Amino acid sequence: MRAYLDWNATTPLRDEVKAAMRDAMEVAGNPSSVHSEGRAAKMALERAREQVAVALGAEGADVIFTSGATEAAAMVLAGQGVHCAAVEHSAVKAWCEQDLAVDGNGIVTVPDPARASLQLANNETGVIQALPEGLASSDLTQAFGKIPFAFNWLGVTAGFVSAHKLGGPKGIGALILKKGTDIQALLRGGGQEQGRRGGTENMIGIAGFAAAAVAAQRDLDAGLWDEVAARRDALEARLLAAAPGAVIAGKDARRLPNTTCILTSGWKGETQVMQMDLAGFAVSAGSACSSGKIRASGTLQAMGFDDSTAQSAIRVSISPALGDDQINRFADAWETAYSRWRDRNGPAEAGLRKDKG
Amino acid sequence: MRAYLDWNATTPLRDEVKAAMRDAMEVAGNPSSVHSEGRAAKMALERAREQVAVALGAEGADVIFTSGATEAAAMVLAGQGVHCAAVEHSAVKAWCEQDLAVDGNGIVTVPDPARASLQLANNETGVIQALPEGLASSDLTQAFGKIPFAFNWLGVTAGFVSAHKLGGPKGIGALILKKGTDIQALLRGGGQEQGRRGGTENMIGIAGFAAAAVAAQRDLDAGLWDEVAARRDALEARLLAAAPGAVIAGKDARRLPNTTCILTSGWKGETQVMQMDLAGFAVSAGSACSSGKIRASGTLQAMGFDDSTAQSAIRVSISPALGDDQINRFADAWETAYSRWRDRNGPAEAGLRKDKG
Repeated sequence: MRAYLDWNATTPLRDEVKAAMRDAMEVAGNPSSVHSEGRAAKMALERAREQVAVALGAEGADVIFTSGATEAAAMVLAGQGVHCAAVEHSAVKAWCEQDLAVDGNGIVTVPDPARASLQLANNETGVIQALPEGLASSDLTQAFGKIPFAFNWLGVTAGFVSAHKLGGPKGIGALILKKGTDIQALLRGGGQEQGRRGGTENMIGIAGFAAAAVAAQRDLDAGLWDEVAARRDALEARLLAAAPGAVIAGKDARRLPNTTCILTSGWKGETQVMQMDLAGFAVSAGSACSSGKIRASGTLQAMGFDDSTAQSAIRVSISPALGDDQINRFADAWETAYSRWRDRNGPAEAGLRKDKG
Repeated sequence: MRAYLDWNATTPLRDEVKAAMRDAMEVAGNPSSVHSEGRAAKMALERAREQVAVALGAEGADVIFTSGATEAAAMVLAGQGVHCAAVEHSAVKAWCEQDLAVDGNGIVTVPDPARASLQLANNETGVIQALPEGLASSDLTQAFGKIPFAFNWLGVTAGFVSAHKLGGPKGIGALILKKGTDIQALLRGGGQEQGRRGGTENMIGIAGFAAAAVAAQRDLDAGLWDEVAARRDALEARLLAAAPGAVIAGKDARRLPNTTCILTSGWKGETQVMQMDLAGFAVSAGSACSSGKIRASGTLQAMGFDDSTAQSAIRVSISPALGDDQINRFADAWETAYSRWRDRNGPAEAGLRKDKG
C-alpha cells in the first residue's frame, strides 16, 4: 500500500470534487449561448465563480478562470518587467527580474512592492512570506487551502491560484484581480471573462475547482491542517534525531503546516526520491515541475545553501489524508535508507552555506 | 423534450468521454513527478497524445495540449502580423490583418499562404476552404470530427483544434505543429510540453479529448456524417420551400455536413433564436462566442450580405445524435414561426447583397 507524501506537487481529487465534475458532465451548453442550454451553463459558471471567490476571501474582486496559475501569472507578468526573488515558482520567474534579496530562512525583501511579485508560500520549503501592502501580485497557489487568508486583506492587486493543489483537477485555476483592474488579454477572441480571457470555459474543471475550494475552506475551518502541522513537526523531530547533521530548510520561518524540505548534505535528493519510491512512498526533490532535471533548486541556492547541500534536498509534503501510521512508516523507511548511506559515507554534515553561514 | 441543434457551439459529452474522464479522475499523479504516481500520469498523458495525433492524421507531428483552440491560435498568431479573412473565428481575427478577399460563397483567396491563416471550415456557414499548400496555420476546430482530413496532408504548418466540438470537454484543445516547428511559449514555467506550453497538464480534460477523438474518427469512418448531410439537405429543402425568399449562406460551396446558415431578410436572427428556444429547440444566431452581442456576423458581411440580411441569420447545426423526428419537429416549429412573421411583414426578400449581387 503506497503512501503519497507529495501533496505540493499535486493532490488526488476529493470525493466531492469528483461528484461535482460528474454532475457538470451533464450540463451540455456553452455559457456564451443565449438559449436555455447556454443559460444553464452560464448559471453554473457564475455559481462556481462565486464559490471560489468566497473561499479565497475575494468577494467583490474579479475571479477570472484560467488554465492554472501558470496562465494567471503570465497574464499579469508577461512583458511587465516586474521584480521577484529566485524562490518564486518558475511560472513567475519566467517573466521577472530575479533580483530581490532572500535571507537564510527564505524570507524575501521587497523594496518596491508596486513593481514586485512575491509568493505567499513557497512550494519547496513551505516558507510563508509577510506580503507588503501594495504588492503588485502574489502566487497564492501553495497557500490556498493550507493556511487561512483572505485575498481582500492581503493588500495585493493580483493573485494566482490553481485547483490541483487543493483536491481539485489539474488544468484549471484563476487570476484574482482587485475589482476593475485593467489587464491586456493573453488569450483573445470570444470576449469571455469580460474580454480578459478568451476561449470557451473549462466547465467541468471549473465545477471541480469550486467544489475543491468549498471543501478546502471547510477543512481549514475544522482545524485539519493544525493536525497536519503537529504530524509534520513530529516527523521532522524523528528525521533530525536519526540524522543530526540534516537541516530543515526555513525551519526558523513561518511555514505551511504540511511541508518539510530536508537537506542531508552529500546524499543526493534524486537518489532518495527513487529509494523512497521503491519503498512505496511518493516524495520529490524540489518541485514537480523541475523534477527530472538534475540541477539544484533555485530556492535553496537563494537561501545560501551550497550545491551539494541543495542537491540533497527532498520535499515531503503531507496532507489530512495521511495518518500517523503512514507517516511513521515513511520515517522508518527514510531512516533505514539514511543509515545505509551513512554507513558508506559517514554522517551528513550540517547543511553548508555558501555565504550566509 | 428539447432538441439541441447548436452542435457547432458546443457538444454534449459522449458516453465514452465521460467514462474516460471518470477513469482519469483516479490517476492522481503529476506527470512531471518522477515517482510511480507521476510516471503513471505521464504514461496516460502520452497515450492520449498519441490517440489525438492518430485521429488527426498527425502521426509524427507535435501535438501540444492547450486550454482550447483559442490558446492554440494565440500561441502561433500573437504578434506575428499574419493575414486572414473576416470569416475566421474571433480567436484568429484577434491577432491578424483581416485583409484577405472573400467571395459570395465564403471562399477566401490567399495570395501569400506562408503569411496567412485560413480555417478549414467556417463555424457559421460550414463553408469548407481548399487550403493552399504552404499555409502558415489553419483553424481546424469545426472540421475536426465532421469531415475526414489528415493534418499531415493539409500542407499547413500549424493547426488549432478544440475537444468540445466533437463530444469532448470544454477547456481542452491542441496546437498541432509540423515536427520541430519553433514557437515562443505563451505560458512559461515548468517546461511542460517540451518547453512550449508551461503549466500542469489538464489530465482529465486530455483523457476526455483523446476518447472524443477516437470516437469521432470511428463515427466518420462509419459514415454517420453522411447520414447527417442527407438530413441537413432535407431540412434545407423544407425550409426553403416554406420560405422561398430565404437564402442558405454558402449553399454553392462545399460545406460541413451538419451546418445550415439560413437568412430570412428582415426577420431578426435573435428573435428566431428566442422563439425556437421557447419551442424547445437550441439554435444560434452566429457563433456562440458572439451571441448576446447584437451585431451582424463578420462572416456574412464579408460574403456580401447587407446588414438586414446578415442580422436575420440563424445557424442550425445538427449531429448524428438527432433523428429525423427531431429535425422535422424543428422544421415544423420554424415554419410556423416564419408564417406568423410573414403574415405581419410580408415574405422575406431574397438575401440582399451589398456589392456582390
